[in-house]
Amino acid sequence: MVKNQTVYEINDFKLDNESLLLQETLFHNANGYIGIRSVFEEGYPEGFESVRGQYINGVYDITKISRAEQLYGLITEKQTLVNVIDTQSIKLKIGDENFSMFEGTVLASKRWVDTVKGITGRYVKWRSPSGKELELNIKRMASFSQLTLFTIEYELTPLNFSGFITLESNHDANVKNYVNPEDPRTAAYGRQYMIPLKCEIHNGISFITSTTSKSDIQVCTCVKNVLSQEADRLFFIDNNNAICQLTTLASKGEKITLIKYTVFCDSIRCTNAREQAGIEIDYALSIPLEEYYKKQEEYLKEYWDNCCVNIDGDDELNMAVRYNLFQLIQSVGKDQYCNISPKGLSGEGYEGHYFWDTEMYIQPFFTVTNPSISKKLIEYRYETLDMAKEHSRILGHKKGALYPWRTIMGRECSAYYPAGSAQYHINGDIAYSIIAYYLATKDIAFIQEKGAEIVFETARLWLDVGNYHKGKFHINGITGPDEYTCIVNNNYYTNLIAQYHLRWAVIFYEILKLTGQFRKVTSKIGLTESEIAEFKKASDSMYLPYDPDLKINPQDDSFLQKKKLNLDSVYRKDSPMFMRYHPLFIYRHQICKQADTIMAYLILEDAHSEETMLNSFNYYEKITTHDSSLSKCIFSIMAARLGMDQKAFDYFGNSALLDLHDLFHNTRDGIHAANMAGSYMSIVYGFGGFRLKESGIWFSPILPEKWNSYSFCIRYENSRIRVTVNRGENIFTLECGTPKPIYVYGVEYLLKDKLVISQEANRHSWLNM
Amino acid sequence: MVKNQTVYEINDFKLDNESLLLQETLFHNANGYIGIRSVFEEGYPEGFESVRGQYINGVYDITKISRAEQLYGLITEKQTLVNVIDTQSIKLKIGDENFSMFEGTVLASKRWVDTVKGITGRYVKWRSPSGKELELNIKRMASFSQLTLFTIEYELTPLNFSGFITLESNHDANVKNYVNPEDPRTAAYGRQYMIPLKCEIHNGISFITSTTSKSDIQVCTCVKNVLSQEADRLFFIDNNNAICQLTTLASKGEKITLIKYTVFCDSIRCTNAREQAGIEIDYALSIPLEEYYKKQEEYLKEYWDNCCVNIDGDDELNMAVRYNLFQLIQSVGKDQYCNISPKGLSGEGYEGHYFWDTEMYIQPFFTVTNPSISKKLIEYRYETLDMAKEHSRILGHKKGALYPWRTIMGRECSAYYPAGSAQYHINGDIAYSIIAYYLATKDIAFIQEKGAEIVFETARLWLDVGNYHKGKFHINGITGPDEYTCIVNNNYYTNLIAQYHLRWAVIFYEILKLTGQFRKVTSKIGLTESEIAEFKKASDSMYLPYDPDLKINPQDDSFLQKKKLNLDSVYRKDSPMFMRYHPLFIYRHQICKQADTIMAYLILEDAHSEETMLNSFNYYEKITTHDSSLSKCIFSIMAARLGMDQKAFDYFGNSALLDLHDLFHNTRDGIHAANMAGSYMSIVYGFGGFRLKESGIWFSPILPEKWNSYSFCIRYENSRIRVTVNRGENIFTLECGTPKPIYVYGVEYLLKDKLVISQEANRHSWLNM
Repeated sequence: MVKNQTVYEINDFKLDNESLLLQETLFHNANGYIGIRSVFEEGYPEGFESVRGQYINGVYDITKISRAEQLYGLITEKQTLVNVIDTQSIKLKIGDENFSMFEGTVLASKRWVDTVKGITGRYVKWRSPSGKELELNIKRMASFSQLTLFTIEYELTPLNFSGFITLESNHDANVKNYVNPEDPRTAAYGRQYMIPLKCEIHNGISFITSTTSKSDIQVCTCVKNVLSQEADRLFFIDNNNAICQLTTLASKGEKITLIKYTVFCDSIRCTNAREQAGIEIDYALSIPLEEYYKKQEEYLKEYWDNCCVNIDGDDELNMAVRYNLFQLIQSVGKDQYCNISPKGLSGEGYEGHYFWDTEMYIQPFFTVTNPSISKKLIEYRYETLDMAKEHSRILGHKKGALYPWRTIMGRECSAYYPAGSAQYHINGDIAYSIIAYYLATKDIAFIQEKGAEIVFETARLWLDVGNYHKGKFHINGITGPDEYTCIVNNNYYTNLIAQYHLRWAVIFYEILKLTGQFRKVTSKIGLTESEIAEFKKASDSMYLPYDPDLKINPQDDSFLQKKKLNLDSVYRKDSPMFMRYHPLFIYRHQICKQADTIMAYLILEDAHSEETMLNSFNYYEKITTHDSSLSKCIFSIMAARLGMDQKAFDYFGNSALLDLHDLFHNTRDGIHAANMAGSYMSIVYGFGGFRLKESGIWFSPILPEKWNSYSFCIRYENSRIRVTVNRGENIFTLECGTPKPIYVYGVEYLLKDKLVISQEANRHSWLNM
Repeated sequence: MVKNQTVYEINDFKLDNESLLLQETLFHNANGYIGIRSVFEEGYPEGFESVRGQYINGVYDITKISRAEQLYGLITEKQTLVNVIDTQSIKLKIGDENFSMFEGTVLASKRWVDTVKGITGRYVKWRSPSGKELELNIKRMASFSQLTLFTIEYELTPLNFSGFITLESNHDANVKNYVNPEDPRTAAYGRQYMIPLKCEIHNGISFITSTTSKSDIQVCTCVKNVLSQEADRLFFIDNNNAICQLTTLASKGEKITLIKYTVFCDSIRCTNAREQAGIEIDYALSIPLEEYYKKQEEYLKEYWDNCCVNIDGDDELNMAVRYNLFQLIQSVGKDQYCNISPKGLSGEGYEGHYFWDTEMYIQPFFTVTNPSISKKLIEYRYETLDMAKEHSRILGHKKGALYPWRTIMGRECSAYYPAGSAQYHINGDIAYSIIAYYLATKDIAFIQEKGAEIVFETARLWLDVGNYHKGKFHINGITGPDEYTCIVNNNYYTNLIAQYHLRWAVIFYEILKLTGQFRKVTSKIGLTESEIAEFKKASDSMYLPYDPDLKINPQDDSFLQKKKLNLDSVYRKDSPMFMRYHPLFIYRHQICKQADTIMAYLILEDAHSEETMLNSFNYYEKITTHDSSLSKCIFSIMAARLGMDQKAFDYFGNSALLDLHDLFHNTRDGIHAANMAGSYMSIVYGFGGFRLKESGIWFSPILPEKWNSYSFCIRYENSRIRVTVNRGENIFTLECGTPKPIYVYGVEYLLKDKLVISQEANRHSWLNM
């Protein structure tokens, strides 16, 4: 399946409906602004299901939520990422015959995504029922250099015939969102969200201006079809579908190429989407496609230089990680109007909402490889801070901000609040990502401008939600990361991150005071020194559950008194527990959907003893179903951390291949972006033992037995450090920037140019000191 | 307002819409099978809102529940009590003028309900716009002797004119249910549930056969209009509305009477509703209405003999309690196909569902006054036991039965499971009511036949839901009675009642073993002796939270560590907290909607020390909003129990007058039946200090300062005991049956004929021994 280390391809691909749905996701194009699922230009046979979607990051509509019992404050409407348009259609007619892979004979076929070039492709060698043979070579690109642009280069070569062919290219506003009422992870009901306002053709370019039905966002898309040779052209609009028919004479052995340009503009980012679309398409048409291909490669070169992970000795996993990192740059939003959803822009799972996945899975990757992207992700949170304050008021808090558990434009979208709004840890997660960004970049200007305000407003909430009990600060009635235990008291992860968050609110206060910027921030939000003192007191007094008998951290106050459940009796590989058990049953048992306390150990490892972490790992591993795709990568990292190398490797493999092998049976709904970042973390934070700490950057690499070596990069402050882990030795190279102190196996070194440090036979020996 | 002690009447009643809606409830007719809201026969002016409902207990339709996130096991449809027909309309035309209280001049008016006669009435003296004066005297009855029968006796007298009048009487199948999407306590969406199948007229009787849209229940209603004098008759059917027009000559000073009979039959109770309706109406017409009135009074005489409470010295409260008890006999189901809903048959609040109100509020009244009714209520639970088993499986339990939190036909209807299905205490409540029925009647035959099976199956659930932790039996992840604290661990009330329930499962086993009936029950449900041993072990090991610092019983494991809230800051008389605060806010604070631990003290008072009960009372009183109508009566009883006589009296008054004074601002949606029984309990269990215990019946009466005396009856085994509490002395009279031991102020006496026991200056002295 894997041909070389940068191109993921499948030859003679399957044509059954399930495989095609999966491929729609795997070979989708995106650039963080637009996303286009990979549907055959010519369509599928009747009766085939398809999620024929094209999306713009941040463009949503509003749908009502119906409830049998409407309680106060429960959301009554939510946002949904909308399918904006269909510009994928290109139908090919050879004489009287329509091209279709489901008729005639497919002589050869291939689909691929090139992670160096940033394009996807489909190759088909086909014989028609009447015996005409042709080759199709179709390349698609969502441009990184012009985010509004999507292109299809449709190249066909008649192999054994000459004659007239017709290409029909559509630009169709009649699009609906996908619906699956049986799965809580997809929308239960949907409809056509985009209402066409105007459909027009100017100078051979079709423009369709639509508006969302409720949220009042205008989208203009325009399409231009450019054929490599003369043709009879027929252009018409039928029911908001702009159709371009090109009839031309094809000559045996001679290539014909149709380039189909689509440009997307929206009224969130520009005042007049229609006008902007005209400017964008004119610009796109003024530059040869080859030039765009070159820019695409240049953009990605820089990306790969900063983040590329190489594994020597396991081609499949090496390709999988490369594939995953490519999807991250495809998926992540590039401006403050959007973020990155768990499915990126590859499908409609979770309705395009943004979650904590951003801060706790995806930013740990970008912050140390492409910090400017991390910064944009934080800016998105800053843009929606006012709505987080409103949200906090709805939940009864007098002060502070509470970020929504899931959202597109900033308002809460979680319909089931026990596993939604109750996850107050998102406040800590966002603060954690800002602190990490600061630790990696020391970008105090950004903290002053935006970061600190978020940290302060979200820190305030902890004071309002928590309370002192017997001298300790308790946080009651919230849900931690593990969604199989909802609305609990003193979730270990939450209390730990809140403690860190509050402590850093004080640190930022002190830094800002030193730089003289404190007043500017505080006067805006009315923060007082006595609140800062309250932050400190709550942080110092934070209650962190510990069980002296088991010598572990209980996930929450009552976790350990709950009924035990044999994992084997409820676990099923093909179906998560929440699809088969009532929430009350799940909540009542000692069973975890995902890493929770174990995740706390990853993010703040110095807050616990080795013994506690090890005991907890062993305890929770036995009761974790990993029904969330966010789980195994964390277990991989902590297994590596705790000396269980083989276990770390097994968890990692599972995580890395999740989408390519469709291990969750739902990649058809979209990729699992957080897990993709998790597979990066499994290598860098796991095998590489990397940690970004207040004291600096730490490494304690191990080399998995099966591999010859691996390498990765870390950007830290103004420097880039390459880490190569060979058998027996680790090489640290300063690729650019100034010398930096680094910690390797707990020992501080100054990295000036290159450092070779021998691998410790048991790297954990230092840990147990 | 109060005229005499058995008739509640209002003179010159208000005609604004809110008052009329309230009166629709207050003066409704019901007999436990049918319920008819009290709408003016002639209707209201256009634009007036009205809940123009006629209901059959147990006749429901099914509606879908839509959810934004459908989790496993959450119900997808629910049952709704349906408005079956409209037979209330009688329109009167005098010459060209239509009678309407909103036109012309109302010279005098009165509405009343006669609790001795069992009829309601409306009197109007009216002058038409043209000056014609007449008197109307309208009596309505839902017959207790023939449950299918509802009559309207419409008597009119022309006072100053003679001439033709027309009476138009309708029998209309076009009825809808009431809807209020803003209040979680009423249905959020609705429609016409009854679909007319056939509308026919035979021998002057109209028959309409309808079916529910989904649940496939047929209802046949028939109407016969009998006029006291000759008339021109016009009979026709217009769009499923059978209209009877009677035109007759009215003579000044001479009464004209129209008797409108309605008969209701349904396919739950008979094979052919249409056929049965014919039989029932023929029977009804064969007996003079006066005869029915007599039977009605006879039926009620027996009822009052058994349950009447008299208060000497407070007419208003005396009337209120009488009114309340009348509503209970109107509301309670008389067969095993139905039960008693919190609104009785007086409205559509809570959609006609049955709750724990039955067992913990209403049965404590019936069990000691009309035990045969209690038995029917238990039989209803027996009828639905199989569905309770199904429900338990849906919630993941391998064994046992879990009764639904709210239901009509036996399947769960609670859409919001944290305050619904999670209230596992309903199992204990049902068992408690069966045990109480047994204690009061010693009806071991019924226990053998039905009671024990329920007790065993529900006891099994505790074993499956609970678990041992550090040697104690814990019940985690459930909700207690207080709906402001959901899904908790070791709710004191729940654990206590579960302990009692399990202990009694063992006692019933032992009794059945002695009587040789054990095999019969156990073989049916496969109960083993080892399960009995498990019952005993769990009961003996039950964990009951106690806080040694505060010396109170915490409501649950984590209640006392939660944030405290000043009640004044959130309480509002006109709006319950749940209408103004997000559930997460409510759950996170030490705030109670209703009696929870305090209720545990009432039902099993000997399980706690005086000191603990007193401390707890003082603790919880400060944080209870009484946003549930089930709360104040319990606080009244426990205040009396703990020596706070004035407080007991204040809580009682509030409870007794809740509906007549519309203290919850929602009596328009129906009466508060459980609270009505609660007002009885406040006197008998509160002031009278009555308890039904395993050792026998206990009394420790006090006399509220403002009263001269009060009396009540208790039926115990085959005897009826009247208790009269005078100033200084209590008189116990054996009204019928054999002598019985009774406990008064903790001392055992044998009541043979009459006992006079002096009132203790401080009756609590014995309690503190």
